[in-house]
Amino acid sequence: MRVYNFSAGPAMLPIEALTVAQSELTDWKGSGMSVLEVSHRGKDFVACAAETEQLMRDVLSVPDNYKVLFLQGGASGQFDAIPLNLTAVGDRVNFINTGQWSAKAIKAAKAQGLDVSVIADQAASGYTDTPAADSLVIDPSAAYVHYTPNETIGGVEFGYVPNTGEVPLVADFSSTILSRPINVADYGLIYAGAQKNMGPSGLCVAIVRDDLLGKARPGTPSIWNYAEMAAADSMLNTPPTFGVYLLGLILKWVADLGGLPAMAERNRAKAEALYGYIDASSYYSNPVAADSRSWMNVPFLQANADLDKAFVAEAAAAGMTNLAGHRSVGGMRASIYNAMPAEGVQALIDFMTDFERRNG
Amino acid sequence: MRVYNFSAGPAMLPIEALTVAQSELTDWKGSGMSVLEVSHRGKDFVACAAETEQLMRDVLSVPDNYKVLFLQGGASGQFDAIPLNLTAVGDRVNFINTGQWSAKAIKAAKAQGLDVSVIADQAASGYTDTPAADSLVIDPSAAYVHYTPNETIGGVEFGYVPNTGEVPLVADFSSTILSRPINVADYGLIYAGAQKNMGPSGLCVAIVRDDLLGKARPGTPSIWNYAEMAAADSMLNTPPTFGVYLLGLILKWVADLGGLPAMAERNRAKAEALYGYIDASSYYSNPVAADSRSWMNVPFLQANADLDKAFVAEAAAAGMTNLAGHRSVGGMRASIYNAMPAEGVQALIDFMTDFERRNG
Repeated sequence: MRVYNFSAGPAMLPIEALTVAQSELTDWKGSGMSVLEVSHRGKDFVACAAETEQLMRDVLSVPDNYKVLFLQGGASGQFDAIPLNLTAVGDRVNFINTGQWSAKAIKAAKAQGLDVSVIADQAASGYTDTPAADSLVIDPSAAYVHYTPNETIGGVEFGYVPNTGEVPLVADFSSTILSRPINVADYGLIYAGAQKNMGPSGLCVAIVRDDLLGKARPGTPSIWNYAEMAAADSMLNTPPTFGVYLLGLILKWVADLGGLPAMAERNRAKAEALYGYIDASSYYSNPVAADSRSWMNVPFLQANADLDKAFVAEAAAAGMTNLAGHRSVGGMRASIYNAMPAEGVQALIDFMTDFERRNG
Repeated sequence: MRVYNFSAGPAMLPIEALTVAQSELTDWKGSGMSVLEVSHRGKDFVACAAETEQLMRDVLSVPDNYKVLFLQGGASGQFDAIPLNLTAVGDRVNFINTGQWSAKAIKAAKAQGLDVSVIADQAASGYTDTPAADSLVIDPSAAYVHYTPNETIGGVEFGYVPNTGEVPLVADFSSTILSRPINVADYGLIYAGAQKNMGPSGLCVAIVRDDLLGKARPGTPSIWNYAEMAAADSMLNTPPTFGVYLLGLILKWVADLGGLPAMAERNRAKAEALYGYIDASSYYSNPVAADSRSWMNVPFLQANADLDKAFVAEAAAAGMTNLAGHRSVGGMRASIYNAMPAEGVQALIDFMTDFERRNG
């Protein structure tokens, strides 16, 4: 019995990919070994990693002048690794602050000695919106501009890509990668923890434009040095092999369903259904500005907040798990990543309707 | 059909643990979710991580004044993280160099600005032995002494624990942890990548004495800051959840078999059988000093090195995989970690006998 799992991450994965992983967990491709047990330097795993990278390139249409790196330490690790790779101490960088993940990236950049200029901060709205595209003033001397295309906690997603001119744009795509097509060439660096749309925690993917390689500070840990990792095909050290393998299975699932255009249609429809229901309700509400609502993470409140625990518990009993809102936000949150089917969102809407009828 | 897998890492895992992981990969504990899909902050996974930590403490008899940390980035990450956590730039540290993994740790310590004094270097023997215990002269001003209890490539293992007096002893236990009892109190810091005796790659365990916490340099990446990670129960960021879960299953397997005393007996018997066979042979040889032979990694040569590829290929066809020696050493290497049963070692000996009969 599988449930509809609305966890913000680690999150629901495609059952099609999980079933393949399960079937071969003790005997991968007839080798008599698990993929967990084979050397990363052996030809079978090297081929697996190369196939995963190629699928990533194909699905995201990654241009040839970008490296795809498989790293460890998650987006939180990259908060430190990015300054170490792209800047010297004292360099000016620009940040857009749209919520808690932006703020963590800013804190780490400051700790790495950068001159951080926050060019937009959505504190006035309680971090429920994104800045107007034409309000952004980029410092042309900045080493890069960093933003968070989707804030997992606030449920805030950019409806546009900031235009930073010649200044490299760096983006934490952890909770939105693979959810819709993007133009990789708009970015200098894209990074994302795997545990929402790509697979298990412990794998982090970085997509880096070639001209940003080779600028690392002395003392940058080797396993986070983009140039060293690129030169070693992400195998300077032992990679998180199971994560790379599972990412490959998930990318095949995405490709089989029609790639990112199909994912976008699927995710748009799910988001429209849920936001449409919430907006039509006088009992439920979502605080986020209409043009900044996340397709992936939908926080919502009910009129009687005293019933939040009951809502979450009754939903779980009905086969819809992990709907509690983030502790800093309260209420509920439905994370509806790629693997959540439309049927799961409809089941949630039906439950919300019933819950309101009984309690509203 | 399972094979005997002699890979140096990622390596053979206990089929008992793999089978449990397989059986619940799409439905963990009746939750309707995979362990890969649940939030690390949810009560089920928090309990899983706490249970894994407690098993680690019980199996290794970890004293109360040590923290057990679940990290990412492997031992290679720790090569940088250790200097960042335990020293200031310019501090004196002592290293013992017994081979390639020692050398990598030394290189990283130098890159982090340390005054590295190598107090023993086994270059004269071609890194086929360990220094005499009474030959080690520790610098009392050193921030720590680092050594590699088992060199995975050279197959060299210390038969004793260096006595460093008041200077903290730091040890890379990647390829020997859980293979026999150790006295954790002899060490200031123990660290180990999981992918030999503990589980999948992508998880790294550190066991740190309390008085070594809180000395990190400014700018130490948060996810590698021992004090910050200890304060956050290793969940400052999303941990590699599947690795923590699988480590728990493997620790249960170790405990069920009788813990580390039983593992030591099992590993001693395997090593004695294989080294005994090699020593009695005039066709096969092992270059390592008798008192420094690894219980985990057994490199060996045959008289006719032209037949190495044939040996490895024919062994694989007979169900014994990954016997090629490291490219820097040549010949063959049999890694016989905890999960390798005595039957696997006997099968290898039988094959070696037959191969020599046909080719010797």
